[in-house]
Amino acid sequence: MAEIAFYENKFVDINEKVVPIQERGHQFGDGIYEVVRVYNGQPFLLEEHLERFQKSADAIELVLPFPKEKITAIIDEGITRSEMKEADVYFQLTRGIAPRQHNYPECPAVFSMTVRKARPISNREKGISVITLEDERWLNCYIKSLNLLPNIIAKQKALKNGHGEAILVREGIVTEGSSSNVFAVKDGKLYTHPATKRILHGITRAKVMQLAKELRIPLVEKEFTTDFLKNADEAFITSTSAEVMPIHTIDDTVLPVDRPISSMLVEEFVKLYHHHAMK
Amino acid sequence: MAEIAFYENKFVDINEKVVPIQERGHQFGDGIYEVVRVYNGQPFLLEEHLERFQKSADAIELVLPFPKEKITAIIDEGITRSEMKEADVYFQLTRGIAPRQHNYPECPAVFSMTVRKARPISNREKGISVITLEDERWLNCYIKSLNLLPNIIAKQKALKNGHGEAILVREGIVTEGSSSNVFAVKDGKLYTHPATKRILHGITRAKVMQLAKELRIPLVEKEFTTDFLKNADEAFITSTSAEVMPIHTIDDTVLPVDRPISSMLVEEFVKLYHHHAMK
Repeated sequence: MAEIAFYENKFVDINEKVVPIQERGHQFGDGIYEVVRVYNGQPFLLEEHLERFQKSADAIELVLPFPKEKITAIIDEGITRSEMKEADVYFQLTRGIAPRQHNYPECPAVFSMTVRKARPISNREKGISVITLEDERWLNCYIKSLNLLPNIIAKQKALKNGHGEAILVREGIVTEGSSSNVFAVKDGKLYTHPATKRILHGITRAKVMQLAKELRIPLVEKEFTTDFLKNADEAFITSTSAEVMPIHTIDDTVLPVDRPISSMLVEEFVKLYHHHAMK
Repeated sequence: MAEIAFYENKFVDINEKVVPIQERGHQFGDGIYEVVRVYNGQPFLLEEHLERFQKSADAIELVLPFPKEKITAIIDEGITRSEMKEADVYFQLTRGIAPRQHNYPECPAVFSMTVRKARPISNREKGISVITLEDERWLNCYIKSLNLLPNIIAKQKALKNGHGEAILVREGIVTEGSSSNVFAVKDGKLYTHPATKRILHGITRAKVMQLAKELRIPLVEKEFTTDFLKNADEAFITSTSAEVMPIHTIDDTVLPVDRPISSMLVEEFVKLYHHHAMK
């Protein structure tokens, strides 16, 4: 097993110096990315991730340097080379290499990728505690861009204080986590922020919503406040890496230990990728 | 004359591949930067830029890998090696090189620098036209961070449509340009947005304010609207690269051709760096 990396047009060592200073990723965060989970050697929901990658690229007028099929082939080869069964595939696209100037240069976009061991999910029985923080990000959070400074500042604050995630709140409304989407359960209904420009349209979020429909759990895509979240019967975050992760405490508010709906969704989600990985 | 670059701990070719994929600049835009103008071989207002660099670093808990004196020495050596008299020194600091994760890694920050030919200022007599655009950036624009995607999108929109700059407007209030600060003159008074978290605290902005005081031009640091700007007697932007640049048209509104106060400030600012460069 080995960590694998790809830059521009070839596989490279993950620690190799392959990027020049004047790459638009390095100087502007001018690019987009995706993280795909590999279960039992199989990339999970890859089509959905590639579709969102294309949408993010379109949103910032970034042209993929090759067709999606080639990205799939690079990812597949990366997974094979890594010999990993449980991995995270990270890939990004930047606006390329050009003398620094704000406006878009005329140069091909640069694709890069890493394949690394997946971080195991622990404590799903217990869940995580979260803190709420002001959502100070830009107004186009639906674009999965490399401009992640506000997200990492929030995540750092959460982890430094012993929490598992920071839940972002914009003008009283819970938007999403620093690297996850947020769901609340109240009176048997499942609530989550609508897929506007203010949140990332999470692939796991969409999958959980689909599972809820199949399980006939009423779903409400509607803005809700911090108070609503703290008064929820259950709450959880979703992300590619965290999958479906229950929240046990929000700031100082402890949520009920019984989580019938979250548990059902966790179970169905795990089945989904187990089933996928058996293909 | 040659373009010069520095990465981590040594001078390198500006096109050399020196950055690994998992540098925090490359994957998160997790870093800060400055641009210093060199006039006649002398870096202009370097102390002020270094002070702001330190402030930006502190704001995101980034620790300079060496004292400011060493940065000065690297910059000086870079200018000498470049043999350029009129240059832009760009330097940035990222949170270093570590396996990708949101929270802050335990690794030294990485400093890099380029020295390139300054872009000459043209058309200052005529000035530039600007468009107004929604300010969609995050809420901590006083930090000079590498998260520049909203800025470059705005700049691109402006240039693509034949304008020189995009003026950003947040909830009706003119904040600043995509890479500049904005001033308006009305009834003999000079107006600019206060130095809150919503704008970059421009070095040229501060210098122009100081010149205004010396020239006894009444100065008002106060929020103003797009309408106020369009009804101004004069308007201009300031930045390290643009210096003091008059605006002749805002969207479809043409400003008066007479610009007594802007002209005075341009003249005094040019004197300032001429004087500096003669030292």
